[in-house]
Amino acid sequence: MKQFLDNDFMLQNDTAKHLFHDYSENLPLIDYHCHISQKEIFENRRYNNIAEVWLGGKNPDGSYFGDHYKWRVMRSNGVPEELVTGDADPYDKFVAFTEALQMAVGNPMYHWCNLELKKYFGIDKPLTPANCKEIWDKTSDMLKNDPSLTVRGIIEKSNVKYIGTTDDPVDDLLYHEKIAADPSINFMVCPSYRPDKAINIQKEGFFDYIKKLAKVVGKEDLESCSEVCAALNDRVDYFKAHGARATDHGIDYVPFKLCSMEEADAIYKKAKSGESLTKDEIDKYQTTVLLSLARKYKKEGFVMEIHYSCTRNVNEKMFRKEGPDTGFDMIAKSNCGDELAMFLSELDKTDELPKTIIFSLDHNDFNLIGTCMGAFQANEEHIRSRIQMGAAWWFLDTRDGMEEQMRSLGNLGLLGNFVGMLTDSRSFLSYTRHDYFRRIMCNLIGKWVEDGEYPADEEALKKIVAGISYNNAAEYFNIK
Amino acid sequence: MKQFLDNDFMLQNDTAKHLFHDYSENLPLIDYHCHISQKEIFENRRYNNIAEVWLGGKNPDGSYFGDHYKWRVMRSNGVPEELVTGDADPYDKFVAFTEALQMAVGNPMYHWCNLELKKYFGIDKPLTPANCKEIWDKTSDMLKNDPSLTVRGIIEKSNVKYIGTTDDPVDDLLYHEKIAADPSINFMVCPSYRPDKAINIQKEGFFDYIKKLAKVVGKEDLESCSEVCAALNDRVDYFKAHGARATDHGIDYVPFKLCSMEEADAIYKKAKSGESLTKDEIDKYQTTVLLSLARKYKKEGFVMEIHYSCTRNVNEKMFRKEGPDTGFDMIAKSNCGDELAMFLSELDKTDELPKTIIFSLDHNDFNLIGTCMGAFQANEEHIRSRIQMGAAWWFLDTRDGMEEQMRSLGNLGLLGNFVGMLTDSRSFLSYTRHDYFRRIMCNLIGKWVEDGEYPADEEALKKIVAGISYNNAAEYFNIK
Amino acid sequence: MKQFLDNDFMLQNDTAKHLFHDYSENLPLIDYHCHISQKEIFENRRYNNIAEVWLGGKNPDGSYFGDHYKWRVMRSNGVPEELVTGDADPYDKFVAFTEALQMAVGNPMYHWCNLELKKYFGIDKPLTPANCKEIWDKTSDMLKNDPSLTVRGIIEKSNVKYIGTTDDPVDDLLYHEKIAADPSINFMVCPSYRPDKAINIQKEGFFDYIKKLAKVVGKEDLESCSEVCAALNDRVDYFKAHGARATDHGIDYVPFKLCSMEEADAIYKKAKSGESLTKDEIDKYQTTVLLSLARKYKKEGFVMEIHYSCTRNVNEKMFRKEGPDTGFDMIAKSNCGDELAMFLSELDKTDELPKTIIFSLDHNDFNLIGTCMGAFQANEEHIRSRIQMGAAWWFLDTRDGMEEQMRSLGNLGLLGNFVGMLTDSRSFLSYTRHDYFRRIMCNLIGKWVEDGEYPADEEALKKIVAGISYNNAAEYFNIK
Repeated sequence: MKQFLDNDFMLQNDTAKHLFHDYSENLPLIDYHCHISQKEIFENRRYNNIAEVWLGGKNPDGSYFGDHYKWRVMRSNGVPEELVTGDADPYDKFVAFTEALQMAVGNPMYHWCNLELKKYFGIDKPLTPANCKEIWDKTSDMLKNDPSLTVRGIIEKSNVKYIGTTDDPVDDLLYHEKIAADPSINFMVCPSYRPDKAINIQKEGFFDYIKKLAKVVGKEDLESCSEVCAALNDRVDYFKAHGARATDHGIDYVPFKLCSMEEADAIYKKAKSGESLTKDEIDKYQTTVLLSLARKYKKEGFVMEIHYSCTRNVNEKMFRKEGPDTGFDMIAKSNCGDELAMFLSELDKTDELPKTIIFSLDHNDFNLIGTCMGAFQANEEHIRSRIQMGAAWWFLDTRDGMEEQMRSLGNLGLLGNFVGMLTDSRSFLSYTRHDYFRRIMCNLIGKWVEDGEYPADEEALKKIVAGISYNNAAEYFNIK
Repeated sequence: MKQFLDNDFMLQNDTAKHLFHDYSENLPLIDYHCHISQKEIFENRRYNNIAEVWLGGKNPDGSYFGDHYKWRVMRSNGVPEELVTGDADPYDKFVAFTEALQMAVGNPMYHWCNLELKKYFGIDKPLTPANCKEIWDKTSDMLKNDPSLTVRGIIEKSNVKYIGTTDDPVDDLLYHEKIAADPSINFMVCPSYRPDKAINIQKEGFFDYIKKLAKVVGKEDLESCSEVCAALNDRVDYFKAHGARATDHGIDYVPFKLCSMEEADAIYKKAKSGESLTKDEIDKYQTTVLLSLARKYKKEGFVMEIHYSCTRNVNEKMFRKEGPDTGFDMIAKSNCGDELAMFLSELDKTDELPKTIIFSLDHNDFNLIGTCMGAFQANEEHIRSRIQMGAAWWFLDTRDGMEEQMRSLGNLGLLGNFVGMLTDSRSFLSYTRHDYFRRIMCNLIGKWVEDGEYPADEEALKKIVAGISYNNAAEYFNIK
Repeated sequence: MKQFLDNDFMLQNDTAKHLFHDYSENLPLIDYHCHISQKEIFENRRYNNIAEVWLGGKNPDGSYFGDHYKWRVMRSNGVPEELVTGDADPYDKFVAFTEALQMAVGNPMYHWCNLELKKYFGIDKPLTPANCKEIWDKTSDMLKNDPSLTVRGIIEKSNVKYIGTTDDPVDDLLYHEKIAADPSINFMVCPSYRPDKAINIQKEGFFDYIKKLAKVVGKEDLESCSEVCAALNDRVDYFKAHGARATDHGIDYVPFKLCSMEEADAIYKKAKSGESLTKDEIDKYQTTVLLSLARKYKKEGFVMEIHYSCTRNVNEKMFRKEGPDTGFDMIAKSNCGDELAMFLSELDKTDELPKTIIFSLDHNDFNLIGTCMGAFQANEEHIRSRIQMGAAWWFLDTRDGMEEQMRSLGNLGLLGNFVGMLTDSRSFLSYTRHDYFRRIMCNLIGKWVEDGEYPADEEALKKIVAGISYNNAAEYFNIK
């Protein structure tokens, strides 16, 4: 029997162990998409206890910080909300979480938590209700005193080369400037451009947001879709000047309805006048802005990331009580394969298709994406796999999900060119997910080799494994 | 090579064997959803031969009894209908079935049949065309003479603690009363409430059924949707008084269209006047009744079961000839994730969401359900996993289907809180499906432990395995 | 560690090895659906080098020949189009392909290419950038000189019994006649009937095609849907006289909208007059023609093949440049389960349902198809599994895809009656895909036996394995 969480965790054959320990484990890490706070990096925040890091709490403005993945685990164990996002004693929260976690057999949360305890706190026994007091004491002490457990310490200990934060076009990127100017920080922290709010014309607050966008480009307001596009392009330039090279688009589904800029302007004005839009009009506006942005990304060398197939805030009671991003989202089925292809085709027609990573939250889409992107790889710039199938994301970043995504990509494309993992995380301890991913990737490839399905060709294997772990992302995102 | 059907059947590692034999195998069995006949239990029916138990025959009223799973196996082997549901000689039917079964490699039917022969008849050689005469003779003799092979004998031998039958709201539950009054019966047989006929306003015969429903609540007829809701609530009380604690809803898809009771009444009256309804109107009526019932279930502590993604009676010729439930149904793709979430949200908003088990017949829905339910687990009553992902059902109760369902639940929720298996069966010998499920569950968890993905923590493993086998369902359904 | 590509390639347990080597490997091969050229068979074409066989080139008329599977691999590695479908030096193309292939870990292309090098050229080292010159030289020499490496030589070496080409109803089948008349050809080459162009009334060029169809049945033009049906029936007879026994229908989705022949005629005339049709009208015309053809197939004993869930030519720029079938297609999600069932039901109602093989390009459909076909197996002609779930097809003919298809079929039907593999290929070297399939099939069944999930019953296993490899298809397609 293999020991839980030993050095060969998730590595179930000798080739996998060799690939991981020799070609992957020690490579630096590119976390090209996450939700951590650049302010906390700059200020080098320190946490008081493990409950604060893992389970979070309430900010002064009433919003929550913390990890809604873990809150779901607690709620699934019948833990009252007081102990989840409420004002209960942090230690009591930690106990309740520990009890719930024990039932989470098969859940990556079980692995992540124990990996984090091992990597950052040197604890090599699994967390249980029996030892949770001991672990609480040890971790509290270390979080308060150990210099390697500040935010920056954690990042350095994690061998992070590049962090891509998620930022709104209206953001001034002040902390990115401060970080860049601080010679004591020897990892890259770059903004990523996420203009969802300028695209969601159907949502409440859209025109309030537009005013903010107008302001940062020196205007009073934006009077048309074309002005929105121009403002967004301006901000791409601003982001580029601050080191950005990646974007993110979180959309329910990929829209594709072509219209002229005149028609898009008219739709914008209709919405501005307070009239509600039809689905057709919303799709037209969104398509227009997304195409405009994609063309700009291509010009500036940005990578376009598209995330879809998620329905957010499905529990109305809890949304009213706790707001967004508190653990009340779900996977959506989408039916936008044709639209995805038409979107890519429209851009490719004029050689304006940027590097693009496509993520679906529905694992049933992997093969569809894998074949769709195959139709858009042809390029004269020698870019290897310029369209990428995004790593298994959010609810899918499990062993099963990651393996299915890599199998699908392997079956249908060139796995050796995969740009690999991202954390998508709000927690500084979550870099272990890269470690987790690399182990699963090496295990999969190692198994193929051991089973005689790929030759034991050291040179090729090193290129593939180091590529997926680090080199491909470095090349793709132009990180030196 | 592992011997077929040995004591460690389906258990492919040592931890799995330990978990099954020590923590699962000997626990009693809660079959919280099935279609067996309470009359046959009370009358302690005896069968003449294995063809009668397995393949059934025609009832005096022309309807069929028997197991349409097995009929499909025969038809897939080109067996003429005379030998399937016709009047052919029972032994000839058995021979034809045996020949077909041999081709069913990878089919759970192969396993179930041989498990049943082993458990109930002590036959440890697999059934083949060569030995089927011998097995016919032995089983016929035992079925006629062995006291442990009456219906009650089989149930006792199977260590069944609780049987949840499926009953119509208009049912008088006479045999449930008789069983409850019979001191010689030491297992529980409780009705489950299945009001589909009062919900399917679009189907022929709806208003005939409504008359029956009216009658059992002491009325001539029901004149509105609100009267239907009231009558259904009355019958929930009646069922509760007869020991019910669970319900079942078999729907093609989850509808969700809110309307006022006045509008629902008007829709009901429109249909009653003979006008046909639009899909929108049907959805509104159904949503109204389902919400009303769910609220009542919550009040009475009933578990709500929802089964969807099935299309029934797709072969028109055979439906006309043989009627429903004769093996002519198929998996449907559904697209009602949003509606499912809105339905749960509407109930949770007023704290009226009952314990709910969601079953889809489409395995592509597992992850969607797993994430949807995660958004509705929060409760202040300390109910562990109050929303459950139902076990792999009907066409999915295969090794692959069960494993996929448990992996999905493990990845996305707390597998340790799972209420586990049901037979959904029409056959008294089918309790081996619980045995089959437990082996597959122990094999999966055992493999995780052996691979070092969950610690070899005896206490936790016992809690999880015994929980999924028995304790969780006992707690969830309040069975003492 | 298992050696890559040894004699037990893909066979990971002893039973699998036994099943493959003793019951499968040496059986002849029925390739009941492919796209190879009967002309090249008759003329016994020879190739100049491996680039020509694998990567193809341009025909004099500007169209491409070659394998678009391989072109996708190259494009995914950023290879410029000049080296893919352009006029670059064949050796340079081969080098670029070799480099791309090395990144294709997990891709069946990696396996197929190396299997082909081994089987046809005796090369047992995997192809790498380091040895590609050596392999180029050896294969070029053999292709030019080895008598077993002409088209016919390859077919004989591959132990092919039956080749089903894909042919248009208007085809004169001249080369089929010549092949049949040539006593030196000792394998069967039969046409398959693919009338897509007569069904796609919505596509450009439809009425030009109809004129050709009219001509081959001795008419000037066809004036109605019923005349189209009659002409198509005539051509079925013509094909039957030339040895055909199978058909193919490549459709985006299964349509089902019943109408009278009068209405279908009117729709046809409307289209002929230049008016565009509604989706409803298109579906009605297509349903009418498909039902008419299916009835004819039943009468003539033809097998109906239906392929769906594919979207073609999604990259507009590349479609304009390179035309169809050049590697720019993708998997589509379909939602036509109900229509598929209604189509089969409509035919079965009057006992006019032919043998039918249903292929979806979306693996998410396997279970749906597996249950749908179960509802249409009943027949009085003793045909074992008259409705078949088609083998994993095109993008799915990977180890994962094939295994998933066989598991689904095993779970839901009778895997022992499966008619097995087809190449669907445009390349003469691709018969190794049958070898690949058989290995994967034997490995799956062998694993079940080794795990004690099916007994080690030699007689049954031989029947099953030889059946899926050869005997079932021979019986199903009436090949003697």
